[in-house]
Amino acid sequence: MTRLVLATRNAHKVEELRRILGAAGLDVELVSALDFPDVPDVAEIGATFAENALLKARALVGATGLPAVADDSGIAVDALNGMPGIFSARWAGRHGDDAANLALLLAQTADVPDERRGAAFVCAAALVTPAGEERVVEGVLRGTLAREGRGAGGFGYDPAFVPEGEVRTTAELDPAEKDAMSHRGRAFRGLAPHVAAVLAG
Amino acid sequence: MTRLVLATRNAHKVEELRRILGAAGLDVELVSALDFPDVPDVAEIGATFAENALLKARALVGATGLPAVADDSGIAVDALNGMPGIFSARWAGRHGDDAANLALLLAQTADVPDERRGAAFVCAAALVTPAGEERVVEGVLRGTLAREGRGAGGFGYDPAFVPEGEVRTTAELDPAEKDAMSHRGRAFRGLAPHVAAVLAG
Repeated sequence: MTRLVLATRNAHKVEELRRILGAAGLDVELVSALDFPDVPDVAEIGATFAENALLKARALVGATGLPAVADDSGIAVDALNGMPGIFSARWAGRHGDDAANLALLLAQTADVPDERRGAAFVCAAALVTPAGEERVVEGVLRGTLAREGRGAGGFGYDPAFVPEGEVRTTAELDPAEKDAMSHRGRAFRGLAPHVAAVLAG
Repeated sequence: MTRLVLATRNAHKVEELRRILGAAGLDVELVSALDFPDVPDVAEIGATFAENALLKARALVGATGLPAVADDSGIAVDALNGMPGIFSARWAGRHGDDAANLALLLAQTADVPDERRGAAFVCAAALVTPAGEERVVEGVLRGTLAREGRGAGGFGYDPAFVPEGEVRTTAELDPAEKDAMSHRGRAFRGLAPHVAAVLAG
């Protein structure tokens, strides 16, 4: 079975991507950057989700010789001109502190009235092969920013994001429900045929 | 002598505005919201600097019966789509913690390369009179966001802002130099003739 490396050390993302790519029917052994602890993290200096996803995937291809997929994703809050955006994972200043990031975003927007709390979850999914082929697919989920977190599922900003047409936050959806509508589900389902083609070729 | 109330409790802003309006030759007794401790702070729920400045000035006119001037200002960082913007004073989540706000902004932008560190200081200066006359003048100072703070002058984001054509931060300029180029200096010098007309009328 061919191996594909997920360019993330975020255990939540590894789990979500395994689930999404598994549901897409890919016959592949998924490993992640967690299995390559000696590979240094790449600086995410891109100006867009797509650039950062490509930077991460390219670095893993270079280090492992395997085809790599990467995700760069975040929450884009209308009242903050689309921020935290590509800075979502380090919004509170330190990478990967979900609770601090969410608490900061809710504190910053405490005075933003309900009618201006529109937001989107955005994901760029990138595929890079050892031969240099590159694909990026974006997925977007529109919704609103809640005033406080609710729900124990998901990760990141899930407890404070209510998708359009929902009353629950994405942390209150079960995993299959979340994947069906999520930005990451949409992006990686769009990328799956390209991954399948690479693995078949 | 006519009294004019500055709608701020920020002692640094009071000092700067006294200096700027004094230099503009206004013959007026300046008081500030610090002199009216029982007047509640207004929620800054506007979507722009101008809206927030007007909200603050209107509230002070209503509470004191005096003509009021207010400032709403902040730093707009290009790589953050113009944020912190109107959220500058509460960027770290709690209103008015300058050191925390600056530390957070520098941490968020730690990976932003030099060529994308453009920024602007923006100020909206508002005048509201008991008769209901309202004026807003904006001032902008372009520059770049430094990687760490330098200088003991100024306040807010001054230690990390280098104006165009300067190598010093605005915290390294002497007060008269800063006022001559600053967003707040430009906005309030633009507003001064309107204030003079109101006081004369």
